[in-house]
Amino acid sequence: MLGNLLQNLGEKRPLIHSITNYVTANDCANLLLACGASPIMADDPGEVEEITALCDGLVLNLGTLSQQRIPALVAAGRAANALGKPVVLDPVGVGASKMRTQTALELMEKVKFAAIRGNLSEMKTLAQGGGQTRGVDAQQEDAITGGNLHQTLDFARAFSQRTGAIIAITGATDLVAAGQQGCTIGNGHPFMARITGTGCQLSCLVAAILAANPEQRMESVVAALCAMGLCGQRAVARLGPQEGNATCRNYIIDAICRLTPAELEEGAIYAMQ
Amino acid sequence: MLGNLLQNLGEKRPLIHSITNYVTANDCANLLLACGASPIMADDPGEVEEITALCDGLVLNLGTLSQQRIPALVAAGRAANALGKPVVLDPVGVGASKMRTQTALELMEKVKFAAIRGNLSEMKTLAQGGGQTRGVDAQQEDAITGGNLHQTLDFARAFSQRTGAIIAITGATDLVAAGQQGCTIGNGHPFMARITGTGCQLSCLVAAILAANPEQRMESVVAALCAMGLCGQRAVARLGPQEGNATCRNYIIDAICRLTPAELEEGAIYAMQ
Amino acid sequence: MLGNLLQNLGEKRPLIHSITNYVTANDCANLLLACGASPIMADDPGEVEEITALCDGLVLNLGTLSQQRIPALVAAGRAANALGKPVVLDPVGVGASKMRTQTALELMEKVKFAAIRGNLSEMKTLAQGGGQTRGVDAQQEDAITGGNLHQTLDFARAFSQRTGAIIAITGATDLVAAGQQGCTIGNGHPFMARITGTGCQLSCLVAAILAANPEQRMESVVAALCAMGLCGQRAVARLGPQEGNATCRNYIIDAICRLTPAELEEGAIYAMQ
Repeated sequence: MLGNLLQNLGEKRPLIHSITNYVTANDCANLLLACGASPIMADDPGEVEEITALCDGLVLNLGTLSQQRIPALVAAGRAANALGKPVVLDPVGVGASKMRTQTALELMEKVKFAAIRGNLSEMKTLAQGGGQTRGVDAQQEDAITGGNLHQTLDFARAFSQRTGAIIAITGATDLVAAGQQGCTIGNGHPFMARITGTGCQLSCLVAAILAANPEQRMESVVAALCAMGLCGQRAVARLGPQEGNATCRNYIIDAICRLTPAELEEGAIYAMQ
Repeated sequence: MLGNLLQNLGEKRPLIHSITNYVTANDCANLLLACGASPIMADDPGEVEEITALCDGLVLNLGTLSQQRIPALVAAGRAANALGKPVVLDPVGVGASKMRTQTALELMEKVKFAAIRGNLSEMKTLAQGGGQTRGVDAQQEDAITGGNLHQTLDFARAFSQRTGAIIAITGATDLVAAGQQGCTIGNGHPFMARITGTGCQLSCLVAAILAANPEQRMESVVAALCAMGLCGQRAVARLGPQEGNATCRNYIIDAICRLTPAELEEGAIYAMQ
Repeated sequence: MLGNLLQNLGEKRPLIHSITNYVTANDCANLLLACGASPIMADDPGEVEEITALCDGLVLNLGTLSQQRIPALVAAGRAANALGKPVVLDPVGVGASKMRTQTALELMEKVKFAAIRGNLSEMKTLAQGGGQTRGVDAQQEDAITGGNLHQTLDFARAFSQRTGAIIAITGATDLVAAGQQGCTIGNGHPFMARITGTGCQLSCLVAAILAANPEQRMESVVAALCAMGLCGQRAVARLGPQEGNATCRNYIIDAICRLTPAELEEGAIYAMQ
């Protein structure tokens, strides 16, 4: 079933508007091209509504946030909502500064998100309207382990029910919640945390699969997490003894570029909870 | 003959000022270093004139345009014109928003371009002063095929005569027009469209070769298109079964880095029309 | 001894805040992850003080400087000083415009730097409060050669004594000065100059090692220069006949990712002067 969603992505080739940070924008664009989508990046308040109107989906990413970009995030999100296009929020580093937290909360209030993807620290800050994160990585106590998995799933379900968004929390274990439903993902590799932007790329992949499969929101998010995790595993498996995170970054995007629907179908590891 | 132009580039090592988008800036800088030029990126209105004055050529790229960057584009363009340095316009996504279209038209009015490089949708918008593009890729009806090649060449010639710029339109087939002269390029590979920034990089290569060969404007643009296309072919030919667009991105820049004048001379495929 | 410093970095995993340019930000983030540190990039005046307060070290890089970023540089630098966290200055392109020179001088006045790393042209401009550089590369007369090595070391020692910062001047030969002490580095490869951002990455590595070893400032800077140079040598040695600067960029970061304390200890070439 997940394979079909990837198949549809390849056939529909959605155009995805990303308002994103300048650290990982290039990787996000290549990831979107790799998966069969088409990227456009634009972040000036003077043009984002028109750009969003041309597109099939929108990603709002809070990395390297600037005051000038805040009205662009709001305007693009509202335009996408008005046109019925899926919007994905990636609350990078929310909790690390008042500006990021307030911007995220403003977006939660003014924009309806199809999906929100972040680590557990970011998601807790978002759900609680405050709190603190250590930079862009999850706090150590926010690692998702066997011990807190069910508690985290309950948190994600409640957050999904309150917001109407599919909630994807990524970490050592990834999980997805859609209303009462929950799902854990078994794909992925810890080395992916050593590569900048794998989370940002994943949020773009979520938007691309969602844009091609608007009726299957939860399945689309699960497919994106499985695909990224599977490609991360494949990339790490390819690494030679002299290769590290820079080459692995390329291998992940390469693997997405080569991933077939049948391979995703076969390699995806997930369990409904 | 094209080989000599690359030879001159390697000997003169021009410094190229790029005012460009944050998605592909890193690839543009590495492409310039690969071809033997030296890059500098600066986009604040408070310093661009001084930076341009230090340089041998200038690229104005409209990707991730911002209102703050518009006066910088104009000021740098005018400074380059006043000093007789070649200016290349890459009208990324023009037609996708009023802001991009108006900025492009303002630049066309205030700056004299040595060359303009874009896809057919962007070029039509620029020539007609309006229209619409689908993001940063050409509209499907704007693919350059056998059927519309001569019509497209005529359009490019007329646009070149009106503006005085060498016009380079890239797509499935690339073409160049300089006044009454036209040229089609046979190098290139369709997979290059799956890599973000190959167009931006090409515009930088155009500027670098032009800066080293100011008297041979049309030939310089043809050389840049042939070199980029040839390196794209070589990069795709090197790809292993697990490699995709991320690795191909590196291979293209690598190929430019290794390209010798003799190889360009031998591998360039072009026909005067 | 240098190996221990790298060992400490791997154990302490410092979080490094970089206010940096959009050309090389991705490589800087991956370099920080490669060496065992954790990156965060944030440059809005509205959040930099809070972000710096979360971090263990700060890098101020003047590439693609913008007027909006200047107050962020000052505020972050002061916050780091107030909290006793090391600050590294990378005066990219200082001398190429009045805006960059004035910003650098303002920073020198308002922020106390643990280390300053640049090429000789940038360092002279900084020390003399003026002068001119050719873009982001050193002027030809500012190449560090056998002929001017002792003179350059004297300049660096005097600049270190005046500022209290460890001074690292990189070029064909790299050198470090800390008060009366001087050191030359024998690692490195000329091909590294063909890769954009190796200097920016090195400044991040300096900050990471310093943050993990605050009591050994000069040794930390020497370790960073040796590690980067050694990894550059290894990366160039791995290059196949079709590989150029794009692949080499990845290989350098890969090499940092794989570098062990014992390998640094064994491969580092430096001489106290």
